[in-house]
Amino acid sequence: MEKFSVTDIKDKSTSPETAIAGRTGPVKITYFDYDAYHIEEKNIEHAEECFRFRDTNTVTWINIDGLQDKALIGKICNHFKIHQVIQDNIFNIDQRPDIEDCQSYIYLSFKMLYFREGEITSKQISLILSKNFLISFQEEEGDVFGQIRDKIRNNLGKIRKNGNDFLAYLIIEAVVHNYFHVLEAIGEAIDEIEEEALSDPSPKTSRKISMLQKEMIYLRKAVWPLREVLIAFERSDNKLIRSATRIYLRDLYEHVVQAIETCEIYRETISSMLEVYVSSISNKMNDVMKTLTIFSAIFIPLTFIVGVYGMNFKNVPELEWSFGYPLVWTVMLSLVIIMFVFFRKKKWI
Amino acid sequence: MEKFSVTDIKDKSTSPETAIAGRTGPVKITYFDYDAYHIEEKNIEHAEECFRFRDTNTVTWINIDGLQDKALIGKICNHFKIHQVIQDNIFNIDQRPDIEDCQSYIYLSFKMLYFREGEITSKQISLILSKNFLISFQEEEGDVFGQIRDKIRNNLGKIRKNGNDFLAYLIIEAVVHNYFHVLEAIGEAIDEIEEEALSDPSPKTSRKISMLQKEMIYLRKAVWPLREVLIAFERSDNKLIRSATRIYLRDLYEHVVQAIETCEIYRETISSMLEVYVSSISNKMNDVMKTLTIFSAIFIPLTFIVGVYGMNFKNVPELEWSFGYPLVWTVMLSLVIIMFVFFRKKKWI
Amino acid sequence: MEKFSVTDIKDKSTSPETAIAGRTGPVKITYFDYDAYHIEEKNIEHAEECFRFRDTNTVTWINIDGLQDKALIGKICNHFKIHQVIQDNIFNIDQRPDIEDCQSYIYLSFKMLYFREGEITSKQISLILSKNFLISFQEEEGDVFGQIRDKIRNNLGKIRKNGNDFLAYLIIEAVVHNYFHVLEAIGEAIDEIEEEALSDPSPKTSRKISMLQKEMIYLRKAVWPLREVLIAFERSDNKLIRSATRIYLRDLYEHVVQAIETCEIYRETISSMLEVYVSSISNKMNDVMKTLTIFSAIFIPLTFIVGVYGMNFKNVPELEWSFGYPLVWTVMLSLVIIMFVFFRKKKWI
Amino acid sequence: MEKFSVTDIKDKSTSPETAIAGRTGPVKITYFDYDAYHIEEKNIEHAEECFRFRDTNTVTWINIDGLQDKALIGKICNHFKIHQVIQDNIFNIDQRPDIEDCQSYIYLSFKMLYFREGEITSKQISLILSKNFLISFQEEEGDVFGQIRDKIRNNLGKIRKNGNDFLAYLIIEAVVHNYFHVLEAIGEAIDEIEEEALSDPSPKTSRKISMLQKEMIYLRKAVWPLREVLIAFERSDNKLIRSATRIYLRDLYEHVVQAIETCEIYRETISSMLEVYVSSISNKMNDVMKTLTIFSAIFIPLTFIVGVYGMNFKNVPELEWSFGYPLVWTVMLSLVIIMFVFFRKKKWI
Amino acid sequence: MEKFSVTDIKDKSTSPETAIAGRTGPVKITYFDYDAYHIEEKNIEHAEECFRFRDTNTVTWINIDGLQDKALIGKICNHFKIHQVIQDNIFNIDQRPDIEDCQSYIYLSFKMLYFREGEITSKQISLILSKNFLISFQEEEGDVFGQIRDKIRNNLGKIRKNGNDFLAYLIIEAVVHNYFHVLEAIGEAIDEIEEEALSDPSPKTSRKISMLQKEMIYLRKAVWPLREVLIAFERSDNKLIRSATRIYLRDLYEHVVQAIETCEIYRETISSMLEVYVSSISNKMNDVMKTLTIFSAIFIPLTFIVGVYGMNFKNVPELEWSFGYPLVWTVMLSLVIIMFVFFRKKKWI
Repeated sequence: MEKFSVTDIKDKSTSPETAIAGRTGPVKITYFDYDAYHIEEKNIEHAEECFRFRDTNTVTWINIDGLQDKALIGKICNHFKIHQVIQDNIFNIDQRPDIEDCQSYIYLSFKMLYFREGEITSKQISLILSKNFLISFQEEEGDVFGQIRDKIRNNLGKIRKNGNDFLAYLIIEAVVHNYFHVLEAIGEAIDEIEEEALSDPSPKTSRKISMLQKEMIYLRKAVWPLREVLIAFERSDNKLIRSATRIYLRDLYEHVVQAIETCEIYRETISSMLEVYVSSISNKMNDVMKTLTIFSAIFIPLTFIVGVYGMNFKNVPELEWSFGYPLVWTVMLSLVIIMFVFFRKKKWI
Repeated sequence: MEKFSVTDIKDKSTSPETAIAGRTGPVKITYFDYDAYHIEEKNIEHAEECFRFRDTNTVTWINIDGLQDKALIGKICNHFKIHQVIQDNIFNIDQRPDIEDCQSYIYLSFKMLYFREGEITSKQISLILSKNFLISFQEEEGDVFGQIRDKIRNNLGKIRKNGNDFLAYLIIEAVVHNYFHVLEAIGEAIDEIEEEALSDPSPKTSRKISMLQKEMIYLRKAVWPLREVLIAFERSDNKLIRSATRIYLRDLYEHVVQAIETCEIYRETISSMLEVYVSSISNKMNDVMKTLTIFSAIFIPLTFIVGVYGMNFKNVPELEWSFGYPLVWTVMLSLVIIMFVFFRKKKWI
Repeated sequence: MEKFSVTDIKDKSTSPETAIAGRTGPVKITYFDYDAYHIEEKNIEHAEECFRFRDTNTVTWINIDGLQDKALIGKICNHFKIHQVIQDNIFNIDQRPDIEDCQSYIYLSFKMLYFREGEITSKQISLILSKNFLISFQEEEGDVFGQIRDKIRNNLGKIRKNGNDFLAYLIIEAVVHNYFHVLEAIGEAIDEIEEEALSDPSPKTSRKISMLQKEMIYLRKAVWPLREVLIAFERSDNKLIRSATRIYLRDLYEHVVQAIETCEIYRETISSMLEVYVSSISNKMNDVMKTLTIFSAIFIPLTFIVGVYGMNFKNVPELEWSFGYPLVWTVMLSLVIIMFVFFRKKKWI
Repeated sequence: MEKFSVTDIKDKSTSPETAIAGRTGPVKITYFDYDAYHIEEKNIEHAEECFRFRDTNTVTWINIDGLQDKALIGKICNHFKIHQVIQDNIFNIDQRPDIEDCQSYIYLSFKMLYFREGEITSKQISLILSKNFLISFQEEEGDVFGQIRDKIRNNLGKIRKNGNDFLAYLIIEAVVHNYFHVLEAIGEAIDEIEEEALSDPSPKTSRKISMLQKEMIYLRKAVWPLREVLIAFERSDNKLIRSATRIYLRDLYEHVVQAIETCEIYRETISSMLEVYVSSISNKMNDVMKTLTIFSAIFIPLTFIVGVYGMNFKNVPELEWSFGYPLVWTVMLSLVIIMFVFFRKKKWI
Repeated sequence: MEKFSVTDIKDKSTSPETAIAGRTGPVKITYFDYDAYHIEEKNIEHAEECFRFRDTNTVTWINIDGLQDKALIGKICNHFKIHQVIQDNIFNIDQRPDIEDCQSYIYLSFKMLYFREGEITSKQISLILSKNFLISFQEEEGDVFGQIRDKIRNNLGKIRKNGNDFLAYLIIEAVVHNYFHVLEAIGEAIDEIEEEALSDPSPKTSRKISMLQKEMIYLRKAVWPLREVLIAFERSDNKLIRSATRIYLRDLYEHVVQAIETCEIYRETISSMLEVYVSSISNKMNDVMKTLTIFSAIFIPLTFIVGVYGMNFKNVPELEWSFGYPLVWTVMLSLVIIMFVFFRKKKWI
């Protein structure tokens, strides 16, 4: 699972080969084999256990969690006759969403997204859709396909009456559906930070905004290309996609477009938030400076007056007056009042 | 009815299914059935009352206000043979304007807009245009179709002499026409805020500008996609759209383009307003600071002078002069006048 | 005639129907009927006087100034078989430039522009080009076609040897030609305001820039769509446009593109002008603040020194010196000179 | 020769007809007539001297410097059967680069550029490429074709073995080649001004940047359209362009694209320069203000202290101490040192 | 090898011909000739040694390091029948990536990139792919093809079983692969400078950001056009590219798109970094100014108070009080405390 944060921008440019290095643990393989009348689900340990499904006419969904065991996965891919270039792509988890129509099968890859503690994490999913089987490759265990599995087990909805292509649609649909949860979470984060920018801006706010901006960049990077992938998938003249499924794909396409539009709106909102923040922090600063400057301005003439009567001239008549001292205080107080009223009227305070 | 405001940006990213949750109350169904010679209008309570119109050749407009009763509406949709995906779209009120040509009928969806108290609210309308009937689905009661209903009742204009497609045109036309009222209201708000930004800028102005900016984002989101919907509608080779109606659709398309252009002009105006606001508030601040700084600058040399004669040196000849005190006042007054003239000449005051 | 100014942005969003409300006075109709050998010019009072030209083979140009008399104009349109939608467009003076090819005639609409006292005003012109006649509809009397009329009357140039389509070209050409005069006037205004922004910036400058920016928005709104209108006109396969005229239309198209490019250059210039203004006003402000701050800085140590000798300590040897007072003046003067030289060297003054 | 500068933006919007008004002096006409075996070069005085080349099969290059003698040039154009619209374009030196394929000949127009004393000047060149001749029209004497003439005279390279189209290619190539010299000169100006913006920013720098920005606008205006002209020229199916020449044209096209890219890079560099300038000048200002404010801040407590001992209270024990005066100096000096150390530590000085 | 830095922007606009002037030293030519069964590698000194490979059916890779010996390289090119225009392009190292399909061979040119000490340097590579041979031209010795040579020598992978086109793919792939290393290095530089901008901004940071921006411009200039080159290469219908190679090219294309996207993300990050820097430096400045202003504001009323008791009025009762002096100190201390608390509460300190 990759993590995008302020400090790991360099991780994104790692050369493809090294991306999954350093992961360990066993690879988990499960399959579902079903048609309208029967259903078989199994957790397998040896690659060979799923080999026979290559040539059976039932719908088979082989799901592989974890890509660290290159030998094992390579064996499966070779048996299912997947081209070497496609295999390389499956192992390269730093790819942008893509589709490749290889006649006898279609290869699709896209990103599952999570939003946790202010950070988007992504997980690559690759699909191989062929006549008799559908293989899904995931970087790691943990996905959003629970509902699909339940529907297969309990024969809910149309899933068991339809083919591989419908299953592929449901998988992509689950991923896209999850984008909306991520967008919702980001929307909440935006609202929060915007309120902060408006009412209590601090350098920390700027850091948060800049981080959100970066998250949106990665979000777009995952969501935008999916649009083209779906167009190519829906318009493909490959027989693997039945025409009944196409209306679902067109509908899904609309959802992706909606997700993209929401992305764009968020991006605009975030970038205008930076301006709001800057103007808000400068307003705050201006208030402080203005108050202090006015404060100084009031004392300046007073200090001058007391300076005048500190002079040591021989003949300063005022100094001799018995009411001189209270008078100078009266004059100074009046001055303060006059200046205060003047500044008020000018709307400076 | 959705409401867009500063604090509900997250509402926009709710997953489609939950959008109409929490609405209650009965669904209101009315129909018009007419041709050039007869007219029938009725408020119905049971779905079955409108079923017969599926196969009659007269023009029938079934209008459904409220989507909360999924069972009832599902029954109607199924009778009128509407695909499940289209039904899902009808219930998903968070969709972008869309069109789907299903051969035997055309599905259209778009947004009705209102501008109240500085906020745009939108309401989704879906149309099903088929050979014998037109069904309109609205999120809630309350629309802008009063004039159309009057024209049908009183056989005004060409409406009774034309088919379903012309009725669909009139409905979209009423919605687009209403966009101009919304734009007019926003135009007034822009003028008001711009005047405020120029002559009396305050942090509140910035909040208002940022809110207007957000309203424009949602407005665009509703209006932009309608352009493509109308192109697809007008250029569709489906027989449901008679060629006589197409010239009206092309004209309507021009109006939508005009609305979009006005949107763009408003967006530019609003974004340049932010710059005007910032430069205007900084001008105001500068004026305050400059005035106060000049004020201080005038007193600084005076305070120095009175300081000079406050010194306790033995031999300060000026202190002994009998006219010393009035002289120092004269000098100080002259200095003030000279500085004042100098600052004036420099155009600093 | 519409007027665009800072305060009428809302006027632009009026719904189409109300745009020409409130205009009064008679509609003025004139016609020219000519071929290479004869010429007839007349000011008519009854619509019927021009009806016969519908079916004659000579070139007839009917010009209608003013749209307020809907009944009269409707009568003419109906006689000349103009579709209702086109008629509505003719009356809607808030439209964007448009073209509609109705087989038996071509409808064109565009804007004539004027620049007076810093404001652009526009006037809509609609043309109906048919086999035997050309009708031009103008919002108001007053146009830029004087030269064309002279050429017809005096048989100058190729006009009398060519058809309707050439006349239509000449009319559009006169309008486009006039755009360059408007651009020239705006160019002068830009130069003036730029000089002001550089050498004498004031809040008024900002208001002027923001107004120019708005004028450019409306200018673009009138000029940009004309490009597409001309492409559609030149590429139309309608027989009404003779091939000899097409080379003129292509050339005209190049002129419109040039006008658009000049628009874009002006827009860039204006928007960079705002930056120039802001940096220029901030430079000016900085100069004031710097001067005053340096002025204060020079007096601060002096005030400190005189403060020192204002202290009432018993044993301050300097106070007893007979040359103490002149010495302190000498010290202070030296200090001023030293600071002045220091600030000079630092290039602060 | 047009001149673009800060103050002549209005000149660019002059209506086409008036552009070459006010030029005087004779028009200079020279021709080259050659094939692989013979060569004839002549300076002619009467238009008729070159008339015979219209129908000879040798390559003839007629070069006309100066457009002020409309009658003379019109006579030549008419003899060579050039359409009136094309003739108008030749005389209109304010045109954007253009190409018009008139079957029997191809008309091309583009701009020769010079960069002198910080200003770009341009000169329009029009070419008429026909089967037997090539005519070039230049606004004024003085061009960059010296090398081409030498190659013709001395039979260097492939020029004498090729046709008109190759000659046209060489002329455009010389112009494009010259663009790189202009870009080089602008590059040097950019480097110079950037260094100035970084190390010694002054309002003059801002003026220079804004002027460079304007030069780039005009440069683009000349270079961008040439790209499309060359595409149209190379892809034209007109027989006048031999297929052997096309590879040269494709190569030339690449050079124009490179020039355009360099333009775009310069534009980006210049616009980021403005930001650099603004941040640089504000850094400089900040330094001044900070230094002066710290300077004041150091004197403020000192002035307070001397004020304390200037008070006239009866019982101020310190005043009676014999070491009071030196002590207060010690205290004040210590304070200055402490504050200095504190500010240093805070990195304020 | 060209070097891009702040001061050499002008170098980029040198006219093509002069780009490799001033290089000396011998040109190094090596060849590999192989098929699945044999392999020959040789460092040659005379051009003629590789001439025979033009007509042999084995795969031959001739690599030429250095372009300074025009005569030698021209001899080779002529023998291998390379068009003069292509030869000119090979010598012009300032070109943008390009492809030219000359039927009997395909010409490709692109840039190898290095990132050293904060600067990107580029080196142009040209390929000539023909039926029997592949020639690569490099500006200088030193490349990233070591792995390819090892694979050929040791018969690793599929290289020896495939043709020229696969070798060309591997060469481009090695170059693209290297782009990711460059991007990784830039990513690290971005992270470093961003941290600096956030926590310790100085004018040097701005210089670094502006330099990174410039590096990205050149990076894009090298990477962007490669996308189109690869599309043209993969879609070419030239028989020189076997269909088995096309899937590798499509995959490579995806990698280039990913590199381009990373470029764009970096560009956005860098440009938002400038804003971060500006807001960060202004925050820092504001902090200094605010602290100093508050410091002054605290002393201003104190200085006024001591001034009051420095006045020489006859009857100032406070002066006579024996506890007057300690009292005034108490008052002043209380004032300082009150102001301190007030500023704290206002969150100004």
